[in-house]
Amino acid sequence: MTRDNDIPPEVQKDIMKATFRAITRYGYADLTMEKIAEESNKCKSTIHYHYGTKENLMVDFIKYLQKGFKRNIVPDTGDPLERLNGVIDRMLFGTKNGKIPERFHTALLELRSQAPYNEKYRRQITENDELIHGKVKGIIEDGIEKGVFEKEDPGTIATIILSAVDGARARQISTERKAVEKARNSLDDIIDEMLLKGR
Amino acid sequence: MTRDNDIPPEVQKDIMKATFRAITRYGYADLTMEKIAEESNKCKSTIHYHYGTKENLMVDFIKYLQKGFKRNIVPDTGDPLERLNGVIDRMLFGTKNGKIPERFHTALLELRSQAPYNEKYRRQITENDELIHGKVKGIIEDGIEKGVFEKEDPGTIATIILSAVDGARARQISTERKAVEKARNSLDDIIDEMLLKGR
Repeated sequence: MTRDNDIPPEVQKDIMKATFRAITRYGYADLTMEKIAEESNKCKSTIHYHYGTKENLMVDFIKYLQKGFKRNIVPDTGDPLERLNGVIDRMLFGTKNGKIPERFHTALLELRSQAPYNEKYRRQITENDELIHGKVKGIIEDGIEKGVFEKEDPGTIATIILSAVDGARARQISTERKAVEKARNSLDDIIDEMLLKGR
Repeated sequence: MTRDNDIPPEVQKDIMKATFRAITRYGYADLTMEKIAEESNKCKSTIHYHYGTKENLMVDFIKYLQKGFKRNIVPDTGDPLERLNGVIDRMLFGTKNGKIPERFHTALLELRSQAPYNEKYRRQITENDELIHGKVKGIIEDGIEKGVFEKEDPGTIATIILSAVDGARARQISTERKAVEKARNSLDDIIDEMLLKGR
């Protein structure tokens, strides 16, 4: 049972921010409603009343990340090349509000690895994924329309960019290699050779 | 304490194969020495005697996957383009011995998400990662030397390919999108435009 539709916006925002802090601190597996309550100004029973289960709360949290992506990751202004470079930089290195803690990315990877066993997570992650893909694709389409980019398939280039970012994130936290910096260099090459063709 | 140097090769092979079956069946978090024993013809105390902890066993297992990669993923014969396409296909769709179960990839992602908390895992995953990167880079270098590929930076192209594969794997198991097929199409475009330049 999901009750998130009935939650007053301020309460929801407070719980979501507390969830961000708690999952960054403890990871996904060790996350409990009690730990979320400790990070917020709400008591455990309030959080329990609104969400019922950790699963419902996490689905709402994944949805909340989507809003953050729209607000903080996708640049509104600039020419298409600046916007494309901006969205890549923010996905790799952090938002305009500052660096995203590496432990938060670790928790997201943990959450992602639960998705095969959990249909609700999978559905919400798919929705986020499609939104992000659409945004990046939109920037590339805009660039092609304005004659800044070559006529490549925007969906394919968006897939390449998002896969490279995701792969680099997983490498960055699970190995000792400087994966996100290497990914940025690789994506520069892709943009140069596929979208700009040495212009 | 790791005792894997003293394990008779046949015993080790049997335990590793049983670990593959058990981790595919139960995932990483629920994996126990007992479940590995059930998948093998050894008893739990034998496995315990050789490895001591689940952590030691997993480090040896990650090392074992590296051998499998060398033997089953990298094609020995063919021209550089065939070999490059071959290694990508096998990483995305399965080895010459058949499809790798999706649940096994899920378990690997779980294991990867533990690496930030576990130095031994991180070190072994880094070693595997560098080996795979070196193999893909070697195929590209060979292609440039033979005049089949354009003079791109082999390390950068190898990074793009491996990130795209890893990102697609994570997407394939955590969303409802056909991520591995999309990745194959994207990589075809990259090979065409960066390595072949429409030859």
